[in-house]
Amino acid sequence: MPDPPDFVVTPYEVKGRIDYARLRELFGTQELTPELLDRVRAKAEGALHPLLERGIYYSHRDLGGILDQYAQGNPFFLYSGRGPSGPLHTSHLVPFDLCAWLQRVFDVPMYIQITDDEKFWFRPNLTRAETRRWGMENLYDLLAVGFDPNKTHVFFDTRSIAALYPLAADAAKKITYSTAKAVFGFPPSTNIGLIFYTALQTAPSFYPSWVTGRPVPCLIPCGIDQDPHFRVTRDIAEGLGYPKPGLLHSQMLPGLLGVDRVMSTTGDVADNALFLNDPPKEVERKIRKAFTGGRATVEEQRRLGATPEICSIWAAWRSKFAPDAKEFGQITDDCRSGALLCGDCKENLIGRVHTFLGEHQERREKAKEWAESVIIDRPPATAGATPAPPS
Amino acid sequence: MPDPPDFVVTPYEVKGRIDYARLRELFGTQELTPELLDRVRAKAEGALHPLLERGIYYSHRDLGGILDQYAQGNPFFLYSGRGPSGPLHTSHLVPFDLCAWLQRVFDVPMYIQITDDEKFWFRPNLTRAETRRWGMENLYDLLAVGFDPNKTHVFFDTRSIAALYPLAADAAKKITYSTAKAVFGFPPSTNIGLIFYTALQTAPSFYPSWVTGRPVPCLIPCGIDQDPHFRVTRDIAEGLGYPKPGLLHSQMLPGLLGVDRVMSTTGDVADNALFLNDPPKEVERKIRKAFTGGRATVEEQRRLGATPEICSIWAAWRSKFAPDAKEFGQITDDCRSGALLCGDCKENLIGRVHTFLGEHQERREKAKEWAESVIIDRPPATAGATPAPPS
Repeated sequence: MPDPPDFVVTPYEVKGRIDYARLRELFGTQELTPELLDRVRAKAEGALHPLLERGIYYSHRDLGGILDQYAQGNPFFLYSGRGPSGPLHTSHLVPFDLCAWLQRVFDVPMYIQITDDEKFWFRPNLTRAETRRWGMENLYDLLAVGFDPNKTHVFFDTRSIAALYPLAADAAKKITYSTAKAVFGFPPSTNIGLIFYTALQTAPSFYPSWVTGRPVPCLIPCGIDQDPHFRVTRDIAEGLGYPKPGLLHSQMLPGLLGVDRVMSTTGDVADNALFLNDPPKEVERKIRKAFTGGRATVEEQRRLGATPEICSIWAAWRSKFAPDAKEFGQITDDCRSGALLCGDCKENLIGRVHTFLGEHQERREKAKEWAESVIIDRPPATAGATPAPPS
Repeated sequence: MPDPPDFVVTPYEVKGRIDYARLRELFGTQELTPELLDRVRAKAEGALHPLLERGIYYSHRDLGGILDQYAQGNPFFLYSGRGPSGPLHTSHLVPFDLCAWLQRVFDVPMYIQITDDEKFWFRPNLTRAETRRWGMENLYDLLAVGFDPNKTHVFFDTRSIAALYPLAADAAKKITYSTAKAVFGFPPSTNIGLIFYTALQTAPSFYPSWVTGRPVPCLIPCGIDQDPHFRVTRDIAEGLGYPKPGLLHSQMLPGLLGVDRVMSTTGDVADNALFLNDPPKEVERKIRKAFTGGRATVEEQRRLGATPEICSIWAAWRSKFAPDAKEFGQITDDCRSGALLCGDCKENLIGRVHTFLGEHQERREKAKEWAESVIIDRPPATAGATPAPPS
């Protein structure tokens, strides 16, 4: 029997230095193989999204089946979500960057869930008004990533509950307390909202099938920490008459303070992440003090080169700020050879982040104009009806 | 230490021969004293409702405080509910008969909750479509009891969830799994819907206060088996900034098969209860085979008299079908003296039930016309806002 892992990954806790290959084994997910990536690349006419190309997405469930269905004329929809408790930082955009790209490549609908109820239940000191306010703020940021307003739909839990509740009720009946306890590790002091909540995170996976009356495949790009929710969803899907959702799992991005510090909104985070609303001076300060893979002296670094794999700046280039493969290769090579010093590399990144945040704020202002119009209020009257036979 | 009781009373199980005085002690509720009843009688100008006068309502929480507030110009609202799983029988009307009377006497709003989600979660074989259909059918019956259409509001859980969910979310955050387990006796195999549900039964108690921004007292007439839900509600009320609801508790009515058989929709019930949709022949058959307190022979009964306290027919007169005090006194006296034989008494009751059901069906048809208009869809935009200062 192998040693128990010295890390913990659940939707409610990420702790320790994660061995991602081991985590994939523990969760029982599949490796995102070159063959599968080639199928996506073919549809994208050669250019894979960097988050896929560079292995940040590294695991999946049923992606092959989802692509088969797509090829047979039954396109999937995308679904991902965010629990709002404060401002977003750049790594929160990881699933949404990928989703917006997949939406363009596959021309499919996107469903975003804003789980203001979950965060209210999870964080003792947050009020419902606060999670609701952050929910709207976060939503503007997510829509600004580049979604198609005509193909994007939002479940904002406390505002969309009339649409979600019938499906959540169906799901809840199939999930026992024992299951929730085993999957999420809830102690008896857990409030009954959080225990119920996984039923609400299940609902969007089934919504398009419920509304249309035919099985619509679902693909969920998310951090691998969210997999436990969707394991529950997959376990009950077929019993409710819906297809099991497929998943694409990303690794958790390291924070600015080092690769062992996952970028997160919990704990001591102020300096560990680049928030989307950080003023330029803050961006500069944080990047300049960020942990790198550099050497003790300039001379030593010129001679021996640095180590990108442990560097938080390299991680930022890799995941977001050097989308061009050639540029990213150059940065990596120059880092390793010693041609690029950490100070210069940081200044380059600062410039890139300033540009990104400026453009992001502009796109965010535009997204505000249509955000309200894509929030689902109630289900259509046809939801849950037996579909008409094909004509 | 006293012996443990040989009966069980929770919202999800009623078992054994209930010792009501003992149950009141176990639950820690107050006796409904003559002094309190006199305060209600005074407002009703002398005539108390038979359910109060005859001791079927026998226990309370905070009724005195609710009446004090009323006298000081802060009227309460009434709240009671029904979990729909099939047709109603006459004893389901007990809380609603009293509520309609209290509504008239005190001129106060009534809120009815139809808990179609709860019944769906509780009964393994019921579908959501079935509980929803029974919810509407039951609602017509409840409204037909005699509520004022201008002062009556309905929470139909799956239809009113947008109005209930914000308050249920607030409540859920204050209720731990440990509490729910201790109060309701849930085993680990309980589904997470039923665990969450008590938060939804809490919401109506707070709704008028939440909507108006000032503390509106709440009075809940219900079977004493529902007290555990509202114990939880009362425990969390003040922490959420709302007044604790007061309660009026009734005993469980005995069924037609004998006083040890509570009239219920669970178990072998077909012949134990008079359903509101029973055809006349069924009413006759059930009443004729009902358990009475009569003697083995007519001769013996004429000589020794019968025992109303154990008689299901006498219970029906007492709770519903002989509202006139003089008539009820006569029936009771004649039963005890042997002047009234069980066969004749049953035929009298059959006539009264036929009349009642005929009139009920007429009122029910009228109620159908306005039922939709009193179902709460969403909360008003002002809900949860800080109230304007008094002008």
